[in-house]
Amino acid sequence: MASFQTVKGFRDFYPEDCALRNHIFDVWRSVARRYGFIEYEAPVVESTDLYKKKSGDEITGQLFCFKDKKGRDISLRPEVTPSLARMATARQRHYGKPMKWFQIGSCFRYEEPQKGRTREFNQFNADIIGDASPAADAELVALAIDVMLALGMKKDDFVIRLSDRRLWSHFLEEQKIDADKTAAFLQVIDKMEKVPESVTAEKLEGIGLTLAQVRAFIDGASEAHAVFAPLRENLSARGLWEYVKIDPGIVRGLAYYTGAVFEVFDLKHGLRAVAGGGRYDNLCGLLGGTEMPCTGFAMGDVVLGEMLKQTPGAQFAITDGLLKAFALDVYVVVADETARSHALAAVHELRRAGIRADYAFGAQKVGKQFQAAEERKARFAVIFGAEFPTVKVKNLTARSESPVSSAHLVTTLQQMLQAPDVGPLIA
Amino acid sequence: MASFQTVKGFRDFYPEDCALRNHIFDVWRSVARRYGFIEYEAPVVESTDLYKKKSGDEITGQLFCFKDKKGRDISLRPEVTPSLARMATARQRHYGKPMKWFQIGSCFRYEEPQKGRTREFNQFNADIIGDASPAADAELVALAIDVMLALGMKKDDFVIRLSDRRLWSHFLEEQKIDADKTAAFLQVIDKMEKVPESVTAEKLEGIGLTLAQVRAFIDGASEAHAVFAPLRENLSARGLWEYVKIDPGIVRGLAYYTGAVFEVFDLKHGLRAVAGGGRYDNLCGLLGGTEMPCTGFAMGDVVLGEMLKQTPGAQFAITDGLLKAFALDVYVVVADETARSHALAAVHELRRAGIRADYAFGAQKVGKQFQAAEERKARFAVIFGAEFPTVKVKNLTARSESPVSSAHLVTTLQQMLQAPDVGPLIA
Repeated sequence: MASFQTVKGFRDFYPEDCALRNHIFDVWRSVARRYGFIEYEAPVVESTDLYKKKSGDEITGQLFCFKDKKGRDISLRPEVTPSLARMATARQRHYGKPMKWFQIGSCFRYEEPQKGRTREFNQFNADIIGDASPAADAELVALAIDVMLALGMKKDDFVIRLSDRRLWSHFLEEQKIDADKTAAFLQVIDKMEKVPESVTAEKLEGIGLTLAQVRAFIDGASEAHAVFAPLRENLSARGLWEYVKIDPGIVRGLAYYTGAVFEVFDLKHGLRAVAGGGRYDNLCGLLGGTEMPCTGFAMGDVVLGEMLKQTPGAQFAITDGLLKAFALDVYVVVADETARSHALAAVHELRRAGIRADYAFGAQKVGKQFQAAEERKARFAVIFGAEFPTVKVKNLTARSESPVSSAHLVTTLQQMLQAPDVGPLIA
Repeated sequence: MASFQTVKGFRDFYPEDCALRNHIFDVWRSVARRYGFIEYEAPVVESTDLYKKKSGDEITGQLFCFKDKKGRDISLRPEVTPSLARMATARQRHYGKPMKWFQIGSCFRYEEPQKGRTREFNQFNADIIGDASPAADAELVALAIDVMLALGMKKDDFVIRLSDRRLWSHFLEEQKIDADKTAAFLQVIDKMEKVPESVTAEKLEGIGLTLAQVRAFIDGASEAHAVFAPLRENLSARGLWEYVKIDPGIVRGLAYYTGAVFEVFDLKHGLRAVAGGGRYDNLCGLLGGTEMPCTGFAMGDVVLGEMLKQTPGAQFAITDGLLKAFALDVYVVVADETARSHALAAVHELRRAGIRADYAFGAQKVGKQFQAAEERKARFAVIFGAEFPTVKVKNLTARSESPVSSAHLVTTLQQMLQAPDVGPLIA
């Protein structure tokens, strides 16, 4: 029989990949918590209507949508923001404002798989609900920067490209372009970097504009513009304004943004945006709830993973994450099968004490057991042999060895594992 | 416009629910790591064929299956074991045996939602691949017990119901029942506790057996049976045999089990099985890969969550998990708006130092800011006022207050947060 394949665009996370993923999740979670964000999780499946019209044409064209057995139109979520808006409006009286919420989980888009793009990806979403001030937008930009730095990136690895959709609303007003053309216009700007100039020029003409007008506006944008003043002041106080570059070419593809928008952009490897987001003050109302000002961003694991692998400063963090996933504290070697039940009891006690311990299930040569200990990066081996109740504890880094009474094994190892030469106990 | 609803059988994890879920995930992950298991993750979507025939009729009748835009038959995974077998056989030469792997993630079944049963649930899967010995089965039973204990359960809260499908193979042989009726027979035994006696009797007659014969066999089962000897010896060495009850009525619904099978069973609240698993030595071969002996179990979060909420011993652990999700270390109070940029810089420094810090985005009365600090269970408040660069640090538990130079704020708070009266710093 032919063996089975992974479905196109989906990923198997073998242990090495899972360790990198968990390292990214751990950084997302710990930095978000330091910022006072609280974790929630929305369902992976929502009714398809939730995305139609609200998210914009691009994303609804990429929906993994299907009918359930009762004929309901449901979709694997392509993004989390509409679910968050649904959840927040449903219980908006229950939580004090502003709500600073984050979630980590899978999203799905039916796109052609390519580098940095899969049909399933993990996304970190951070949002602030119920606060209309630029201080909330600044808090999110700061969070995005600190996540990148915590992952081992440096200032020259990435930049925040910041814009505001209201710049373009004013521009279109000045150019006397109908407001109902705004959505189409923003789609053109969003695609500008990715399509040939002639395509952009033609589309702009259809709206009643020239490429030269648009280029002049983009080039003329300055961080001195009043719309950016509160963010500049706020981020400067944190020493973070130097990470920001004003770029009106950033408008974000989703339909629901209303104000400040930004992207986290890789500077060295020509990758797609690592993260993006902005203010969306109308979405809760559009979904039938109470109007609430909202702002947020999402960061995916696919482009970020590529970037981490290619950034020297992030290598140490990756190694650390891998070690955390694999390394044992102790490998228990059974040198004499008559001691097996004692060894098993000791393994159990060690684990109960929070120590990562493993052993061979059946009789094996001592050399092979030591080999397994090394493969699993164990820091200590404990040898159970004919001398039981005395056992030997071997420091596999220092290659030193000492006899210990098995009655004191757990406490002895707890002390040894906290000694500086073996590093801290892995939680 | 009508507001949107969650799709039937799917769950919104608001922060309180998410904290409980994360507490369960943390325990699953940390106990599995102590046991030397390594984390992987399989895709949420697989080709439908992977489940057909392999998992058995019951589960394939509950598949969330659909066609993608290219007409491929794909399914949201109802369980993880077939994916694991697929992944393990695809790279079986790459990893030393035994492979001790675990994963945590969502599964989906189209069942009628009811207490302890949703259409989406989280599952912890732990499996040992490439080891045919009962020591591997015992390792999994021990892991399941230690997970329950780590969650705050006591001996009288749960029991491991242990059986072995080979008992029934022998029974059917003795009764001269055709081997091709085994699958149908095991389905009858699996449903026995849930359907009226008359239904079971009728189905057994169809196979050529009487209910009395089956009952006599179940009642006659003893832990002294030779098939259980290695597990009894192994688990006794760890002091865990007292958690086990032999029960041949446990056969598990999935088609692929071949040997030892077990369930973790709630003893007090009449809930469904909390976990279940067993040995499945043929699955890798059935999926077209190399034959490899395998054994594993899965534990879901829905029944477990119900059990935790109803078990007094687990309450402390839940509270702890909630606190970990919500509590701030420090709330920075801006008592004078002229100090805001200094306060913002301090918040930033505190967060960089790994401290959970928050503040109000805009000007607010001091009393309201202290109220927010209390709502978020902050342990300290730092007040930035006209006295800057001197700030006030207030211990919100001890209600004590002291002036600190803002230049020493981070180091001072780091020391204060490690003092025993405020508990350890939340990671």
